[in-house]
Amino acid sequence: MSGQSGYGSSAAAISDLRSHFGDRVLQSAAVRDHHGHDESGWESMPPDAVIYARSSDEVSRIVRVCAHHRVPVIAFGTGTAIEGHVQALHGGICIDLSEMNRILRVSTEDLDCTVEAGVTRLQLDRHLRDTGLFFPIDPGADASLGGMAATRASGTNAVRYGTMRENVLSLRVVLADGRVLDTGTRARKSSAGYDLTRLFVGSEGTLGIITEVTLRLYGRQEAVSAAVCSFAGVEQAVETVIATIQMGIPVARIELLDGLQMQAINRYAKLDYPEVPHLFLEFHGSESGVREQAQTVQEIAREHGGHDFQWATREEERSRLWHARHNAYPAALQLRPGSRPVTTDVCVPISRLAECIRETRRDIERASMPIPMVGHVGDGNFHLLMLPDPDDPAQLEEAEEINRRLVRRALAMDGTCTGEHGVGMGKIGFLEEENPQGVEVMRQLKQTLDPAGILNPGKVLREG
Amino acid sequence: MSGQSGYGSSAAAISDLRSHFGDRVLQSAAVRDHHGHDESGWESMPPDAVIYARSSDEVSRIVRVCAHHRVPVIAFGTGTAIEGHVQALHGGICIDLSEMNRILRVSTEDLDCTVEAGVTRLQLDRHLRDTGLFFPIDPGADASLGGMAATRASGTNAVRYGTMRENVLSLRVVLADGRVLDTGTRARKSSAGYDLTRLFVGSEGTLGIITEVTLRLYGRQEAVSAAVCSFAGVEQAVETVIATIQMGIPVARIELLDGLQMQAINRYAKLDYPEVPHLFLEFHGSESGVREQAQTVQEIAREHGGHDFQWATREEERSRLWHARHNAYPAALQLRPGSRPVTTDVCVPISRLAECIRETRRDIERASMPIPMVGHVGDGNFHLLMLPDPDDPAQLEEAEEINRRLVRRALAMDGTCTGEHGVGMGKIGFLEEENPQGVEVMRQLKQTLDPAGILNPGKVLREG
Repeated sequence: MSGQSGYGSSAAAISDLRSHFGDRVLQSAAVRDHHGHDESGWESMPPDAVIYARSSDEVSRIVRVCAHHRVPVIAFGTGTAIEGHVQALHGGICIDLSEMNRILRVSTEDLDCTVEAGVTRLQLDRHLRDTGLFFPIDPGADASLGGMAATRASGTNAVRYGTMRENVLSLRVVLADGRVLDTGTRARKSSAGYDLTRLFVGSEGTLGIITEVTLRLYGRQEAVSAAVCSFAGVEQAVETVIATIQMGIPVARIELLDGLQMQAINRYAKLDYPEVPHLFLEFHGSESGVREQAQTVQEIAREHGGHDFQWATREEERSRLWHARHNAYPAALQLRPGSRPVTTDVCVPISRLAECIRETRRDIERASMPIPMVGHVGDGNFHLLMLPDPDDPAQLEEAEEINRRLVRRALAMDGTCTGEHGVGMGKIGFLEEENPQGVEVMRQLKQTLDPAGILNPGKVLREG
Repeated sequence: MSGQSGYGSSAAAISDLRSHFGDRVLQSAAVRDHHGHDESGWESMPPDAVIYARSSDEVSRIVRVCAHHRVPVIAFGTGTAIEGHVQALHGGICIDLSEMNRILRVSTEDLDCTVEAGVTRLQLDRHLRDTGLFFPIDPGADASLGGMAATRASGTNAVRYGTMRENVLSLRVVLADGRVLDTGTRARKSSAGYDLTRLFVGSEGTLGIITEVTLRLYGRQEAVSAAVCSFAGVEQAVETVIATIQMGIPVARIELLDGLQMQAINRYAKLDYPEVPHLFLEFHGSESGVREQAQTVQEIAREHGGHDFQWATREEERSRLWHARHNAYPAALQLRPGSRPVTTDVCVPISRLAECIRETRRDIERASMPIPMVGHVGDGNFHLLMLPDPDDPAQLEEAEEINRRLVRRALAMDGTCTGEHGVGMGKIGFLEEENPQGVEVMRQLKQTLDPAGILNPGKVLREG
């Protein structure tokens, strides 16, 4: 049981919670450990207890008890974050939202839906299959939509459809004192006061706990076509992307995978792509529109030395292709079993992307560990996955140094320290480097909405 | 000089400001009166002095002096707001930003630009003419981009390109204590902490003063084509819009004008449209894409009884058409010279739009004054302009009652009390009706960022 850093007694809170939730207050080591970590290399820091909440009212009740006892409270979706987002640094109560998984409403007329926070991306996708609609935000993992809102997720389709920032219409949020807030209406646009929705999108459970999400949906496209194209070097692939974006081609997905990442995918999924840099592309639109887009991009790629443009127009082929892309992370982990993954992402203006990647590749080439690279390069966003030996302090430090150099390189190019992974525990210092004045204002906001600091402490902002 | 409501002495602040700004501290009645009102029917409430600021540092200096003396400070762009946004309820200092009108940077590679807050929409448009880029947000008036960010403006193109919410990448803001804050980087997306940019977009000068704006730009479309189409009734026009949006056609503009508004435009601009409801449309895309879109919409319109589809493909014709639409407001005012305009807008989910407009038209038909209607109906957003006799209290109350009924109708349909005009003084009570819990949180944010309440007091939130 924790009581450090001015927090109260979890034991007292748990006792109060038991009087309402009975044996739904879970304290087994297995459950606690499962909720003490995400998919990053950060060690597990288990909460003192876990409750699977079933409604916003239950979340509110738990938060009120935690507020009363001044005990940390951490929201948990699917645990697929990768910057240390759910670790219980000071113990406390974890609210698992995965049983809040009802799709409350889908409107084909308004192209929107409301879901409980625990609904996952693929669950929504299956539910929408027969409606002619789809939700485009796809961070790879089958994350919960509440978690995706909380971390301002984006992923492969963001280049065309935006991120969770653009696609959340409204949220239901439980505040640090237990108040339940609806941040907006179902109107497509509004000038009615401060943008409370965007205040909570990306706040990583530190300003409130998201319990319901109202999302924009899109009509399924008449035509979808996907392709892969290989390049002799990463630079030619990146130049292809830049030219495509600058020409304003509304490509739906344009993903870079370097040769090492392709090797990882081949091994993991038993495929036989050439182990050189690739772009994975997808085009959405009318039959003729898709044809037009695809032809233009194919020409651009050819000018930059791209070859082997392989098309996948049938849904099954496309699924296989994107399945390979989605498995980039687990595939890459297998490049060095037993290593401790250090993952990072940055995002820069696209005019600086080639330069940023070129300089980063120099670090990768000099590194003593495997470092595959993938990127949502249409947004100027790319990721490294460093795989140091966990028992080799020098290699762990080397990974940190490569990360530091990457982030500082991106910041110097007017980019950001994280395009989509979020701050969690991993990027608190880098956020301070990116915007020290901004962090001051963020601290003021945190202090106002969570004066006792009980909501996911130690994430986004440094404690104390 | 004002000193009500706990504010300090403007005289003392002015004296301090003179020591730095000399005779740039303007106090003539004409200048003060000009800065005491926007284009709404709200009476002028002049500030005690006006300074045309030339830099963020100057704005910071003025705000620091005002903070020291606890004197209100009000940002002024072009004065084209219409909900009472700039009135100096308690006197104080007005900072006019119109001389901060430099376009600081345009990147054709990154499709973005940075401008000072006083740059107007048309100034930017002219500047971009030769770059192949354009900025789509168009609220009609030649507003300043700082003002447009501050009121979360949208207008005719929002159905396709979004509002200022989606198109501001980053802001420079002077806070209530004089701190200068950059809210973001030039990266297209970021998960680096709380969304400070969106916190200030739409805050109407009450949380900070926007001094620079970084905007997304778009490549000019290969083909643009516009059309007008008339309908026997508003309902058929609205049904056409709903079907168009629900089919996912990426129409760039789809505007409704009722028969009375068409009459006003005809008189004002010496045109001869039939004085029945019209849709004004614009399509953007490739040659073939525009043709496809236009054909589909034309068929939908025909099914709903639309006729006289008149095309304007040459830029000159299009300009004339949109010029007529942009003059809807001044044209409507001329329907009853000497009346006091009471303008309002709401936004509802598109599935409720026909019903909302049908019920509203019943009020319009019963009204004792002219009430033209226009709408950015693709977003579910429409406006009424009521023209009561300012000397007839019963008619003024009637206008208020029609407004009240409209807003409550929209709220009951899960819509918002203002789609794009903002809250200003006019919709404070309606914002409270829309989201009482939200207003509590907004008050907390205001209290944190402007504890002395000096920034544009009496706007967005009720005082005290």
